Parts: sequence; structure tokens; C-alpha cells
Amino acid sequence: MANFEDVAKEFVGFYYNTFDSDRSQLTALYRDTSMLTFESSATQGAAAIGEKLANLSFTNVKHVVTTLDAQPSVNNGIVVLVTGQLQTEGEERPMNYTQVFQLLPEGETYYVHNDVFKLIYG
Amino acid sequence: MANFEDVAKEFVGFYYNTFDSDRSQLTALYRDTSMLTFESSATQGAAAIGEKLANLSFTNVKHVVTTLDAQPSVNNGIVVLVTGQLQTEGEERPMNYTQVFQLLPEGETYYVHNDVFKLIYG
Repeated sequence: MANFEDVAKEFVGFYYNTFDSDRSQLTALYRDTSMLTFESSATQGAAAIGEKLANLSFTNVKHVVTTLDAQPSVNNGIVVLVTGQLQTEGEERPMNYTQVFQLLPEGETYYVHNDVFKLIYG
Repeated sequence: MANFEDVAKEFVGFYYNTFDSDRSQLTALYRDTSMLTFESSATQGAAAIGEKLANLSFTNVKHVVTTLDAQPSVNNGIVVLVTGQLQTEGEERPMNYTQVFQLLPEGETYYVHNDVFKLIYG
């Protein structure tokens, strides 16, 4: 199995590229047990998470990753903490955000078991 | 077992109170398999983590939690994402930070399996 830091970097790159180009495809990264907490609103299950992401108010969005830290975790999982900036259409200034992913292995790949996203103000 | 959100809130309150009053006591919250990544510097094991925390440059420090989001996770664990402000002695302005904990149950309590701390600039 690949090094956890390489997996984390590859995952994060793929995740935000997909989010910023066609976020309906993110559904495939979640499973029925997965949880997303987006701005303190919690959703469980791939279908519900996909719907939640699809219905976010912004259309055009761009994530820029500032920092990425990864650790090996339970059941050969990986915890990834990202900080970055989010630029949405109509907003002049990018917003700071933080996001944590708990990835779990599934065959040769990983899925997102936990996902918490939070904007940072001030 | 208590509700994961209550556990997360109680843990976070205890963690920062202890950090800000006598952070040498934080060692008891970690185990040999635990990992701390503090400002992208990684440490494994309770003893090494305790030493790392004790040797941080600041003496007087105060954490103020702005947001806390928790999710149930693998093996009855809990993922907690905190954002907050850190005030250190000699710094006029508090710094924004984010921190994620992966807590795992041990008997009637929890220990910290994963801990990633990151300051947020800009």
C-alpha cells in the first residue's frame, strides 16, 4: 500500500479538482456509513452527501490548498487535515477554511468515512 | 456510552484547560500508538508527545474555542474538528488555529489517537 502521505496528497488533489469542476462526481468517494459535516450541518450516507454537495449555493468555486498534514489512523485509515482558501463566484475575497478527512482503505483505493468542513472567520 | 457530541465537548474543554494551566499533564491523554502533528512536525507515542508539548516555546498560552464539530468514527471513535484562537505571551494579536482529534474509547473514557494542530495565517 502506498505511503500515507502520498495517498493523502493524491486524494486531496483529486477531491478539490473534482469539487471545483463537477462536484456531483464526489458522491463516488463516500459510502453509506460516511458522514459529512459542512458548516456544522451533518449528513450521513453517500446519496445524501452527494445531494448536499450538489445543492450548495455556489456554482463556481475554487479551492486552493495552503497546508496538508496526514497521519496513519485506525484500521489502516488516514487522517488528513487541510487548511486553504475558498474562492466563490461573487465574493471578492477568498475565505479561509479547514477540512478534515478520515479515509479508509477499500481494496486498492480509499473512501471518505469522515469529512468535516469549516470556514474560518476573523 | 455518552453521546459523541457531549464527549467531544467535554474532552475539548478539558484538553485546553489542561493545556493552558499545566500542559505536562496532557501526556496522560495519549498512548504509545498516538500521533501528534504540531505545525507539521510529527511525533509518535505518549512520552514523546508529552516532551514535545512541554518544550513548545511559549510559557503562557490561552486557547479560545470558536467552533467544534464532532462525528462518530471508526471503532467507536470520535473525530473532533476545532477552530479557535490562540493567545500567547508577548503576541499582541491572537492567532487562528485549527485542530483535529481522533478519540478512541478505552474502558469508560477516551484517549487521543490522532492529533493534528495547525495555525492559520492570512
